[in-house]
Formats: sequence, C-alpha cells, structure tokens
Amino acid sequence: MKNLYNSSSNLAIRRCHLGFLLAWICGCFSVTAQDHPRLILTQEGISQIRENLGTAPLFDQRLKMVQMEVDQAIADGMDVPIPKDMAGGYTHERHKQNYSLMQKAGNLYQITEEEKYAVYVRDMLLEYAKLYPSLELHPTHRSYATGKIFWQCLNDANWLVYSSQAYDCVYDWLKPSERDLLEKDLFRPFADFLSLENPRFFNRIHNHSTWGNAAVGMIGLVMGDSILINRALYGLENDGISAEEKDNDEGFIKQPGQNTAGFLAQLDFSFSPDGYFTEGPYYLRYAIFPFLLFSKALANNRPDLDIFHYRDDILMKAVYALLYQADARGHFFPINDAQKGMSWLAREVITAADIAYYYGGNDPGLLSIVHKQGKVLLDETGFVAARDLARGIAKPFHQKSIAFTDGADGNKGGVGILRSSRSEGEEVCLVMKYSAQGMGHGHFDKLSYSLYDEGGEIIQDYGAARWVNIEQKGGGRYLPENKSWAKQSIAHNTLVIDETSHYEGDIKKGEANQPVPFLFSSQDDMFQLVSAKDTTAYTGTDMHRTMILLKRHALHPPIVIDIIRAQSGGTHQYDLPIWFHGHLLSTSFDYTTQEDRLLPLGEAHGYQHIWKEAVGRSKDQHAQITWFSRGKFFTASMLVSPNDELILGRTGASDPSFNLRHDPGFIIRKKEAKDPVFVTVIEPHGAYNPVSEIPTYPFSRIASVDLLHNDDRYTAISVKDKSDKAWTVILANRYPSPTIKHKLTIDQMSYTWQGGFHLLKQ
Amino acid sequence: MKNLYNSSSNLAIRRCHLGFLLAWICGCFSVTAQDHPRLILTQEGISQIRENLGTAPLFDQRLKMVQMEVDQAIADGMDVPIPKDMAGGYTHERHKQNYSLMQKAGNLYQITEEEKYAVYVRDMLLEYAKLYPSLELHPTHRSYATGKIFWQCLNDANWLVYSSQAYDCVYDWLKPSERDLLEKDLFRPFADFLSLENPRFFNRIHNHSTWGNAAVGMIGLVMGDSILINRALYGLENDGISAEEKDNDEGFIKQPGQNTAGFLAQLDFSFSPDGYFTEGPYYLRYAIFPFLLFSKALANNRPDLDIFHYRDDILMKAVYALLYQADARGHFFPINDAQKGMSWLAREVITAADIAYYYGGNDPGLLSIVHKQGKVLLDETGFVAARDLARGIAKPFHQKSIAFTDGADGNKGGVGILRSSRSEGEEVCLVMKYSAQGMGHGHFDKLSYSLYDEGGEIIQDYGAARWVNIEQKGGGRYLPENKSWAKQSIAHNTLVIDETSHYEGDIKKGEANQPVPFLFSSQDDMFQLVSAKDTTAYTGTDMHRTMILLKRHALHPPIVIDIIRAQSGGTHQYDLPIWFHGHLLSTSFDYTTQEDRLLPLGEAHGYQHIWKEAVGRSKDQHAQITWFSRGKFFTASMLVSPNDELILGRTGASDPSFNLRHDPGFIIRKKEAKDPVFVTVIEPHGAYNPVSEIPTYPFSRIASVDLLHNDDRYTAISVKDKSDKAWTVILANRYPSPTIKHKLTIDQMSYTWQGGFHLLKQ
Repeated sequence: MKNLYNSSSNLAIRRCHLGFLLAWICGCFSVTAQDHPRLILTQEGISQIRENLGTAPLFDQRLKMVQMEVDQAIADGMDVPIPKDMAGGYTHERHKQNYSLMQKAGNLYQITEEEKYAVYVRDMLLEYAKLYPSLELHPTHRSYATGKIFWQCLNDANWLVYSSQAYDCVYDWLKPSERDLLEKDLFRPFADFLSLENPRFFNRIHNHSTWGNAAVGMIGLVMGDSILINRALYGLENDGISAEEKDNDEGFIKQPGQNTAGFLAQLDFSFSPDGYFTEGPYYLRYAIFPFLLFSKALANNRPDLDIFHYRDDILMKAVYALLYQADARGHFFPINDAQKGMSWLAREVITAADIAYYYGGNDPGLLSIVHKQGKVLLDETGFVAARDLARGIAKPFHQKSIAFTDGADGNKGGVGILRSSRSEGEEVCLVMKYSAQGMGHGHFDKLSYSLYDEGGEIIQDYGAARWVNIEQKGGGRYLPENKSWAKQSIAHNTLVIDETSHYEGDIKKGEANQPVPFLFSSQDDMFQLVSAKDTTAYTGTDMHRTMILLKRHALHPPIVIDIIRAQSGGTHQYDLPIWFHGHLLSTSFDYTTQEDRLLPLGEAHGYQHIWKEAVGRSKDQHAQITWFSRGKFFTASMLVSPNDELILGRTGASDPSFNLRHDPGFIIRKKEAKDPVFVTVIEPHGAYNPVSEIPTYPFSRIASVDLLHNDDRYTAISVKDKSDKAWTVILANRYPSPTIKHKLTIDQMSYTWQGGFHLLKQ
Repeated sequence: MKNLYNSSSNLAIRRCHLGFLLAWICGCFSVTAQDHPRLILTQEGISQIRENLGTAPLFDQRLKMVQMEVDQAIADGMDVPIPKDMAGGYTHERHKQNYSLMQKAGNLYQITEEEKYAVYVRDMLLEYAKLYPSLELHPTHRSYATGKIFWQCLNDANWLVYSSQAYDCVYDWLKPSERDLLEKDLFRPFADFLSLENPRFFNRIHNHSTWGNAAVGMIGLVMGDSILINRALYGLENDGISAEEKDNDEGFIKQPGQNTAGFLAQLDFSFSPDGYFTEGPYYLRYAIFPFLLFSKALANNRPDLDIFHYRDDILMKAVYALLYQADARGHFFPINDAQKGMSWLAREVITAADIAYYYGGNDPGLLSIVHKQGKVLLDETGFVAARDLARGIAKPFHQKSIAFTDGADGNKGGVGILRSSRSEGEEVCLVMKYSAQGMGHGHFDKLSYSLYDEGGEIIQDYGAARWVNIEQKGGGRYLPENKSWAKQSIAHNTLVIDETSHYEGDIKKGEANQPVPFLFSSQDDMFQLVSAKDTTAYTGTDMHRTMILLKRHALHPPIVIDIIRAQSGGTHQYDLPIWFHGHLLSTSFDYTTQEDRLLPLGEAHGYQHIWKEAVGRSKDQHAQITWFSRGKFFTASMLVSPNDELILGRTGASDPSFNLRHDPGFIIRKKEAKDPVFVTVIEPHGAYNPVSEIPTYPFSRIASVDLLHNDDRYTAISVKDKSDKAWTVILANRYPSPTIKHKLTIDQMSYTWQGGFHLLKQ
C-alpha cells in the first residue's frame, strides 16, 4: 500500500540554468565531411543492417514495402505545389506525403545504396529550396502560429524533422555546392522561421514546441550548427510572451511559473516524474514522437547529454506510461480530448517500441508489442527489434496496476489504473482520473472513471467530439460539441452537482486546481483500491471517491465497487451518470418511458445534449440495471433511495449536424440531497453469442448493496451475493496511512484494523 | 441473361402417391442384432475412423473436446428432473443438455470402445424410461403443440432425434431386456405422442414437423419398426386439421392445397426447386438439420430411396442455397424473422458442410468452410472432411451471384443476389427480396433489399425484434416490437405508400400473393441486374424495382443503382427508406434538426417506432447523403424534387422496454406524388482508420443522377461521375426477353438494342 498523498518532489527547484553553461562548453562540436549519416541512422548501424539483411523478417518486409512505395512515387513523379490548403486539402496532404517520401528515400539510399533514392531526395529538396524563399505566411491565417508550407508551424516543424533525416542520408553524396544552396535557401531560414520568428510556437512547454525544438535541433545536428542545436536544447532567451495568450485549443501558451524553454525544459516539464503526460495518452502518443526522435539523434551526437537517462530515464518512463494507458487490445484510454481507436499500432508507438527496446534495456515484453505492430523502423533500433523477435525471445507485455502522478513535480493529482490479472482470461481494467486539467485538451471530469475488458469499453469515456482529418465534420477539427458536450462533467462517469460542470467549465479554474490522491493499493490481486479527494471542482464541496476491484474466489470476472461521498453542508441535486456501452436488457425497478416525445435532460453544461428517455424509481434501496454488450452481460447494482430518480438517457440532443454518437447512459439523481453517499457495484457476468444462442450467467449474482456506516471518519459498505456471501469494506476517510490503527463499532460489532481500509469476507 | 418469368415447373402435379406404394414394398426391411450402429454411424464408418485416428487433426481435436465434456458430465453425475420450466429455465436446459450428452457419449463409445460411455447412455435412458410413463402434458400449456419433456413438441422431437442416435450406438451392447424396456416404456410411446397424438405438429409442411418426422423415423430405423418409418416418411393419413388453424407465430398449420405430409412431403414442399426456403436462411439453417440427419440415416438404411438425389438433389441444393445466403463473413442475410449474427459457424451448418462434402461430390470449396468452422461431426462425414482438409485440398468457397425462386413449384417470387467478384478484395453484395410471405416468420417487405461488404452490413435489414433465449427480453421469445416494427414495410428498404404496410400487414393476404421476378442477369461481372414487379402489395398499384451492380473500370468498389417505378393512377405519399448502417457525415442539402424535441414519424405500421430527427429539402434534383461505417465511407446519391421531404430518423420511439436498437435511417418522401420514379445510387468509397487518421476518398465520386426517359415501355437513367464519365441505362419495362429488339429516341438520339436492358458508357 502506497500513500500517494505525500509523494511529491520539487522539480522546478531542482532545475537550474546549468543548461546554458553546458551549451557553450560543448559548442566546439562540429561536423566534417564523410561522417554522415549521423542523425537517426549511423554509419555503424547501417553497416550492421546491410550485413544482416535476410535475418530479421519483419525488417525485410518493411524494407520491401517502403521500397515499393517509394519506387511508385518515383515513377509517378514529384510535385511541390504552392501552399494553399487546410488539412485534408491537396497541397497540405501532398507536402505531408513529400516529407515522408523523402525520409523514406533517404533511408532506402543508405540501406540499399541505390543512387536513385539519393537523386529523388536531392531533386525534391532542391524544389523546396526554390520554393521556400518566395513564400509568405500560409494564406489561411487560422493558427496562433501560422506556418509557410502548412497552415500551422506545427506541420512545418514536422516537415523539417523528416527532411533533416533525408538530408542527413544524402549529405555525403551531395555536392558541397548543393549543400550550401540547401542550407542557405531552405534549412537555415526554415529553422529560424520556426524559432526566432515564432517564439509563441517555439518557446512553450507543449507538444507543438517539442516538434519545433526537435526540428531545429535535428537540422542543426545535420549541419553541425551549434547555434541551432543550443536554441533547440535551451529555447529562446527572451520570447516576450504574456501569461494571458492562448492557442487555438484554448490552452495557455505559457504555463504558470514557466521560465525556461527548449527541449530539455520540455523533458523537465512535459511529464510527471513517472512519465504521465497531462493531456492523456492520445496526446502523449503524438507528443512522444519528436522527443524520441530528437533524443535518438542526441544519443548519436551528444553522448555528453546522456539523454535517455535524463531526469531519471524520463523518456523510458513516458514510453511505458503510454503503453500502460491502453486497454488489453492496446487501445489508448480516451481520456480528455482523444479520438477513440488510437492504439499501439500507431506509427508513433512503433517508433516508441523500437527505440525503447534498443535504449531501454531490451525488455522482451516490448517485442510482443512489436509483433502486434507488425512493422519496425528502418534503422538499427527497428532492425534489432525485428532480429530479436525472429530469435523468439518475445514475452507477453504485462500491463500492471499502477498509479501515475500528474504535474512536473508529481503533485497535481494523477490517474490510477487497476487491472485484474490477465492470466485469468477475464480482464477488468478500471481507470480512475484525478489528474490536473490537462491544458487546452482537458475535460472537466474530476474523479471520473472508465472501465474496460479484453474486448474494449464497458463503461465509456466519450472521448472527443471530433473526427480527425475528416473534412465533412468541421474540416476534421474539434467540433462545437466538443466544448458543449465532450468536455462537460455530465459526459463523464463522475458526480455532477446542480447541473453544473466542475469548475463551472472554466479552464482557468481547472488549470489552477486538481484533486488529491488519497490511497492506492494494488499488491493484493484480490482486492485493489484507488481513492482520491477533491475540494476544488465545486466551491465548498468535498468529494471523495474510492473504487475497488474485487476479485472473488468463486466467480469470475471481478467486480468493481464504487463509493462516493459528497459533503457540502447544504442540499443540492447530485447526478451520477454511468455511460454504459451496449443495449439495456432489464432493470429491477419500474420506469416510465417517453414513448411519444423526447426532451433534453437540461439546458446547459452538456445536459442539453442528453435525450431523457425514461425515468424510474426503486421501491427498495437496491436497484439494478443489466445491459448486454459485445457478447457479454453486465449489471450495475446500486444503493438508492425511493426518492432518487433513475434516469435512462441517450446523447444526441441539441446536435444540429449529427456530430454526436447516440450512446445510452444511466443517471442516478439524488434531488435535494444533503451529503449523499453513492455505492455502486459494476459486475460483468456471463456471455452469449448469436451462433450458439445459449446465454451463460445472464443474471446478476449480486443480491444487495448496503451502507453500514458513514461519518467523517469511516464509511462501511457491504455487498452480498445471491449465495449469501458478503463482503464488507470499511474505509478510513481521514487517515490513509498504512501504519495507523483503527477501531469502529457497527451494530454492536467491533472491528479493529490497521491502514486505510479493511475488508471482511463472510 | 435468364428470364425468370417463364421458369416454372409444376411440382405438385409431378408428385403422386407412389410413396405409399413403395413404402409397403420395402416394408420387409428389418433389424437384426449385431448390426448396430446403423443410424448415423455405421460399422464400416466406425472402423475407418478407429483405424485412422491421428490422421485428421480437426477430428482428433473435436474428439478430445467432446471427451473432456462428457467425462466432466459423468463426473458431475446425471439429473433427469421432472419437467417444469419454459425455455431458459433449469429443467428445459437440463433436458437439452441430457440429450446432447447422450448422443455424444454414444459416439464416444463407438469411437473409443470405452464402456463407461455406454453405461452413461444406458443409465440415462433408463432414467427417462422410468420418468416418461408418469408424464402428463408439460405444465406450461403455452404451445399449439405442448410437449411432455419440454414446453413444446418441437423440443421433444429434438430429444428423440438425439436419443435415438445414442440408443443406436449402445444397441448391441444393451441386454435384450433393457432394449425391450426402453422401447416399450420410452421410445414407442414417445414416437406415438409426437405423431398420432399431435397431428397438428406432425402433419404440417413446416420445420417443426420435419423434426417430428425425423424423430419418429430415426427411432423407427434403430428399432427396425416399419410402421414408424413409414409414418415418418409419408405422414398420418387422416389428421383432421382445419385450414384456419394457426401456430404460436401466426403461421397457418396447413398450406393451401396441402394434401400430403411426412418427410418426403417436406422435401417436396419445404424448398423451392433450387433449394430456397421460404422463411429465409436463418430458419433454413435451423430447418435443414433434421432433413440432413434423417436423410443420412435413410442413406444408410434405405438406399432404395436414394434420398440425397431425391427431387433432383434438393437437399444439396438447399445446403448450397444456405451457404450462398450469407455475406462474405458467412453471416446469414437477416431477412424475415432472423437474429443477426447467425452464421456458417452454427452447429447446423457444421453438420451441413460435412454431410454435403461427403454425399455431394467432395466439393473442395466446402472444405474452406469446414476450416472456418474449426469443428467437424464425430462420424465418417466429419472424419472425411477433416482428413481431406489435412490433405490440403481445400479451395475458397465461391459465393456466386444467383437468383433463387420461392415456392415449392418455384413460382412464388424469389430472392436475387448480386455479388461483385471477390478477387477484387472489395466485395459488394446486394440481396433483393421479392419472395413469398414466408409463413409466420415472414416480413411485409416486397421488393426490398439489403447491402453488404466484406465487413458486414452497409444497408441493413433490421432482422427480428427478438433476443433468442435471453430471458430478460420477453423470455427470449419474439417481442411485441417484432410485429409492430420489424415485420412492417417501413422497417425495410422498400417503398411504402400512404404510411401503410404491404398487404396492410395482413398475413393472410401476404400468404396469398407475391411479387413476380422480371429479369436477372449476372453473366457480365461489370453489369449485373435484378428486377421484379409487384401488383399485389397495394391494391391497384404496380411497383417495379430494378437494381444494378455496376462495376467501373477506374474506381472500386462497385456502385448500386436502384430504380423504382410506382404506378397507381392517383396521388399518394411514397416513402423510400434507406436504413444505412453507421454515422451520418454530411448531406448535400440543408435540413432542420429537431434539436430540443423529438416526435415519432407516424402513428402506425411501424412509423410510431421512428423518431423524426431532421427534415430537409434539396434545391436541385440531385441530393446526397454521406455516412461512415466500420472504417469506410458511403454515399447515397438520389434523384429528388424540391418538394420531396428528406427525412433523417432513428428507431426507438414507442418502445417502452428498450427492445429496439436505435439505428439511423433516411427516408425519401414524395408527397402527393403521381406515378413517381425513384433513382438512387449507393456508393461505397474510401476508408479511414483511427490509427493512421488518414482518410482516402472521403467524398462521393458521383456528380449527378438523372432520369432521361420514363413511360410504360422504357425507363432511361444516367449516372455521371465527377470526371464527367457517364453511364446511361435503358430498361425495357414490358418485355424482358433477351431476343426482343428495342428502339428508343431520347433527346433526338436514337438507341437500338436487343434484350431487357441497355447500358451505354460515355
């Protein structure tokens, strides 16, 4: 048992301005002819690959596929159009394709030594060198940092990250005069544009800036330009950015107290001490790519930085944090703004797995992910992963229960993940979110959770209201419903008071506050627990949520027990939604369905997007709903009062352009309640498939859920199953420490125990 | 090109009462000791299996699995409870399990020669022999033909079909006194109950009766009882059933003109001449099982009947008809009452594949289905399939374009299936339904269609409103919404006039009428066509629908062109729904969404179940909607008038118990229209996956859809794509014959051609 409450360190104090000092000491670093490639590929690595072609099937397959793709592109001829379009449009997509092709052709030239690939890279770079000096800002002017080739600097930085690799691969092959031309007309002005001319893009602590830093640093490494390299590592000294400035996603440009910038500052401030990324895994997946790529280049060229061990191996921690924040299929938890379906198969994760395997100690668990990916990088990290996979040393990747802290100092809440042991074949994975706001992509869902099994979502997080790159849906950008629905508290499985979102939906308040981790315990596979408190989402209200993954000897799969205490003194309306995934089968209570007229559940804070389909009330204090999803049965059993409204609803109201999914949800509503306690059991049970048509265990095995005791000091609940087995859990509401002894008398029975919780089996 | 209009034969006349004659000639057939097993297993087959164990991995695996299952059951001990429960309840499920275990144990005894399996069968049969004489009718009394062990005779017949196999396997091993007891107290009274005592169950042309016939015949074959065998083959002579009697599913007991019964009559009347089953593939899958099993027993014991060649190989035709009526994944088209997801993997289809492979000429295409199934029967047909699969001679099963006729004489409409060649990797499969009503399980959807690709449904047939065997949903039986929604015309992709279902939803009118096939052409893979007319669904209205699968050289996948002509003289409201599967992306026209209040689209005939979400109108005569489903984009392009209402809706209204799925639909509504023509193009285009986040071809390539000409004799339409390629199709509305020459002038251009249609590419 670990008490997260006290685990903080003050990273901001630890960091100092040593960086600049080091930078000039190492400024003697220079590049001479015949020592390329040196950026991502190395001469040594390339020799190893060339000598061992045919021994690593996955590498050979990938090489063949890339060769086919580039050969086709060479046959089709190149096009370097004048920039004009937004994302999705021709010039945007073409320039993206171009930088990808150049990078691939560069690799192919190095691996195959076929000159046609070098020619292709050279000719395209020369086209860009011809075009670039003539370019003004991109005509769209829709970004806080408009690019030249693309509508935003971010994409321009992507271009340079890829093109610098291509340039590195053909560097020695090019004539010196060609190199001079490319550097003078293209690369140096390009790097200056991304940095000196766009400080708001370059000097943030943000994934956009990481790309900018990496781009400038990588071209600097290829050209041997210490000024660019240092600018990349340490940022611009004076950027003149005010604290109020925001980007297009409503995120602040500067973080409070931020006084450093550049790549090392990104490493210091982008991740929590254990590798958590405040925007969540969807964006970590995106953000980590330039980190890894530039770090690889630095590992090759600036061993003095020992970059993969920087800040206690922060990059490797981030890679594992990414891999852990996925369901059993490898789909990332869609917390905050995230498009569902993004997974371990993403190109950035292929990069992460190969590089982490190479630089992170050859973890054989990573090879099983490489195997699932079926693709490797065309460099020595990809080669070694493919070679070792072929040697049969892969092991299953074990996604363990883990609590991540959030914030650079690890003191801004976190995310707790509880997983049942995978060996049982019946995975239940609970993700409880008590993290910081997560900048512009954060959602107002303090103390929320989502639940997964081996097939995907059981209780869903809606994710973002966005269809990335789908032109028909708002040009692929965030849709209006992302703000009006997806970010709102009611869209999440968390408590909503008086139909108002956490922090009243104000990002500034959200950024300034966060919940506090209270307790996390995962050592006992039969009883895992995560608990956190919040006093900030609603002024004057304390919320305390404890979630338990309880494995029972007799019956699989495990169940989840959810206990929420809210205290505000006054009376309020409390809504607890359960966004279950699937089709409602039955309820234990009567309800009245809106058969011939549907109205929205409310008017604002996301409620306007929910159709109110039915309302019921339970005659006794135990209510159940059972649903069916992906071949399995699930039941939520809850403690309710006869006054509680049990609301069945569905998203899709106030949605003029059909941007929302029409997903079902269930809301426990306590009206005019004073300091309520919610106790809910989520129980997967049984299966059915339409081929055999035989259901197994279609009914819940839970007979009752009871609240035995509740005061400021202790809360005790019990869950009874139909064979009269009972589990009683007592939580210490004030002191979670494992060393403190407790005593509580309930119904004349006296319980004594040590530590933050106590489980009794009967 | 085949003109189906003239392809009828008069089966009813062909059949005569030769059956009874033959029966008594062959009545000399008898059973002597030491000649069992002879029913499904044979002594020769068993020798072959025993000698070759270890050579057919799939067979060995299956054997091992079944052995584990039965060993466990033996260890757990047997229970033969007093019948009490409905389907889903304990006694029902236990008796089902019992007969399955007995049949398996019988097979195991024969294959492994381990006596414990024979003991298990004997002991359980003796338990049943003790119980059976004491049984009255099952206490539920909820079936038109209540059973004794189960709530309906159908399940009792299942019991006897399985138990007769078990008895056959241990027949020689049993003491004569045991056999006498079993036959006297159990099998003979059981067979008489199912036949003599339940003529309404036994003497129908219906899948229930096929089970009854097979059960009585199979136990007759084991016991060598010619009376039972003949009763099974030829039915009861006098059943006294009136023409008005119905079963629990609203189906008539007697078919009009039916004057024969028994197994051979089932073979004569259950299938169309090409193997189509009027209820559709979901029920064909269920119905075919006793046909195949009893036929296999007859093939072993009554070679004189040459049963697998009976009626021009009707059983093999039925097996192939079943396999063809599935999408590329092997999921059966959910036409009529059908639960979605039923597929080639069903136990009945495993039986069908093995038996058809063995008796139908060793089609290597069937082995690829056996491979997908991963299971074989524990008899010589399963053994041979597994052996040949291991020999590596399997070939892909080719699902071809095909038109099935419906009705025993093939003159009651049919179903046309058009498929693009699978070799392209982009399957489009169109199913047009112009069949007969399909008895109690039929839907009122004349001239409807559904559309599939390699991943499943594009344009869906709703299927049945039923959760088979799921207790929580109406005990697993058909739900009220099956009648009020699923059967109604508006639930299907077909024309609905004046908000009234075909035949006004009257099954008697439906049974008495059907559409007429007009034209079917599938020889040219680039241009396939199916066409049918109906004059009966709406009195006084002629409907003519022609659907074309058009493959274009430049672009994949193929598109579907849908042309409907309706003529009634007066003005009516015409609704054409498109129940697309997926999420609406965009429309070419403006619409007004019901953002804050939803009302049902209508009051009856299924309309009460549709929420009206939005209504639009198109300014020009070309309207498009684009949706996204399972990683792919689809667009419907349609010819409309500015007066047409373009309605977006969703199922789920008037659904008090959440029995319906909430699926989206689109309706083209022509109000006060006179003899309208609907022209619609359904176009799959492009793909997107959330890992790469890169869409390909997200936009329709169709620029316009036009009606060039329309009168009683000819209809001409054209489809133009965005590169100005145009396809013009002229249909001859009266004379589909391939030999007739036609001439038509449109816009001063003169066209001449021969046959029912003409395609011009431009």
